[in-house]
Amino acid sequence: MTTCHGVVNLPEVRKVAIFGGTHGNEMSGVTLVNLWINNGAEIQRSGLTIKPFITNPQAVEKCTRYIDTDLNRAFTQDNLSVPRSEELPYEVRRAQEINQMFGPKGSPEAYDVIFDLHNTTSNMGCTLILESSKDHFNLQMVNYIKRAVAPASCTVLLTEHPLLQYSTTRSVGKHPIGLEVGPQPQGVLRSNIFESMRAIVKHALDFIELFNGGMEFQPCTVDVYRVSEKMDYPRDTNGNITAMVHPNLQDCDWEPLNRGDPMFQTFDGRTIEYEGGHTVYPAFINEAAYYEKHQAFTLTRRESLTANGIKASEM
Amino acid sequence: MTTCHGVVNLPEVRKVAIFGGTHGNEMSGVTLVNLWINNGAEIQRSGLTIKPFITNPQAVEKCTRYIDTDLNRAFTQDNLSVPRSEELPYEVRRAQEINQMFGPKGSPEAYDVIFDLHNTTSNMGCTLILESSKDHFNLQMVNYIKRAVAPASCTVLLTEHPLLQYSTTRSVGKHPIGLEVGPQPQGVLRSNIFESMRAIVKHALDFIELFNGGMEFQPCTVDVYRVSEKMDYPRDTNGNITAMVHPNLQDCDWEPLNRGDPMFQTFDGRTIEYEGGHTVYPAFINEAAYYEKHQAFTLTRRESLTANGIKASEM
Repeated sequence: MTTCHGVVNLPEVRKVAIFGGTHGNEMSGVTLVNLWINNGAEIQRSGLTIKPFITNPQAVEKCTRYIDTDLNRAFTQDNLSVPRSEELPYEVRRAQEINQMFGPKGSPEAYDVIFDLHNTTSNMGCTLILESSKDHFNLQMVNYIKRAVAPASCTVLLTEHPLLQYSTTRSVGKHPIGLEVGPQPQGVLRSNIFESMRAIVKHALDFIELFNGGMEFQPCTVDVYRVSEKMDYPRDTNGNITAMVHPNLQDCDWEPLNRGDPMFQTFDGRTIEYEGGHTVYPAFINEAAYYEKHQAFTLTRRESLTANGIKASEM
Repeated sequence: MTTCHGVVNLPEVRKVAIFGGTHGNEMSGVTLVNLWINNGAEIQRSGLTIKPFITNPQAVEKCTRYIDTDLNRAFTQDNLSVPRSEELPYEVRRAQEINQMFGPKGSPEAYDVIFDLHNTTSNMGCTLILESSKDHFNLQMVNYIKRAVAPASCTVLLTEHPLLQYSTTRSVGKHPIGLEVGPQPQGVLRSNIFESMRAIVKHALDFIELFNGGMEFQPCTVDVYRVSEKMDYPRDTNGNITAMVHPNLQDCDWEPLNRGDPMFQTFDGRTIEYEGGHTVYPAFINEAAYYEKHQAFTLTRRESLTANGIKASEM
């Protein structure tokens, strides 16, 4: 990697994967990836190998999030290195297969870019999820996508955190990028959500093609929301929830939450307020899949990241 | 049953059940019924036995619609009369137990009124579901509820149909009434949906208390939407869907659909129009649980039913 006038040379992108069905009931990605497996014309770009792939086919078949355990938390070094056995949970075996096909994670042979397509029941709109604040290729890509979809909005969630580790399916690639579009109930395909996701994948592939073609992308800043904390529902001693997301907060993903703002409403009508000291920006508010993870929403903080300029290096 | 000045004497109501969890991932009913099992003060009414009851506890435990088969289609005479065996599907065994506890279906010992609480992912608002156009008690009850919630709206769906038979859980009672509130994703509890459902149950119980107390309810007319037909998604020869609900139809439950109106949008962008000759009123548009039933929405026709006046007979 060399820098010249603030522009870093990065290797060309050769292998791209588009994952759908990491959660088998998130229908936009499942449907798009199956469409592209049948006819890839829409996602072909010159000089690029682009592989659409259903990562959790058994969960897709049953239209459920997972069979034994959440595939999108299964790519830990422990899981990937444990000896293969039919007694392992289905998703752990599947993680090992995916790691062989698209990784190995952290190796030079790994796919260059992996997109993983998700839906949320939360009112998050289009959200690109990054795992590193130092991945300048991905920062440039999300900057390109944000400009391409404007005036529509596309938010960037950064999951980089010292303690909260996700071990996602896409993490086997060198540049992992999640795409989360909502609101859409599990098991439902809504045309507006489907077309939003499709457009973002198009812009992302266009970006890669331009990058490979020699276009220089100038240094830029990208506003992101960094995961800071998880907030659980209030619960009783048996673990049953005793309150719902407050109507003033429901569907208000990415809007500021300040000390004293309503957060939960108990079944007997009391309001529970946010008591934190800083302004936070909740996301994944009342996401169906996160009840079992004891998470009513994720708190994030806003920050601006600076991306180096980038240019494909001569091969 | 005797008539005097258009008012029919009907027996007092003594036994009422409120079912939740007939579908284990429809969280408003599950949560309300569990609340009321713990503390029934809110649903107590003088002279009435009111039993809140979770009908499919295994599905609730797993937060899934059902374990083996849809409980809300399981109350057929065949299922209810087949000899009990551990090899029967879980929901068939459960149907037999529920029939013993709250029926037997069609018998004088059956519960008088059974409410069954459901959620839908469709934008249907509050919907009361009746199974018979001749159940004057239920017609008077929905008329009372509609007036009590006004100006908010509460729609009445009539599932009486010569061919489409539902065999619902609530059908073991003498006066079965379904309550369907949406939109709410499966596995999610939204405060607005929860409070709407709670208010309707309150009004329904108030009605029964007034009826038992001797109030005379005058003849009235009730506008209902009668199920006429089911519409499947367009599919290819492998059974995979090839189109989505059109954005102009999505979320437009209960609005008129006329010949030539957009109905589906194919993945390659073509519009499929409604070609029927009559104005219809779709409901359950893009309901998550109905993909497997090959149903994109239900077509209904509007009609007005006339309810006799009713009064509790002297015991």
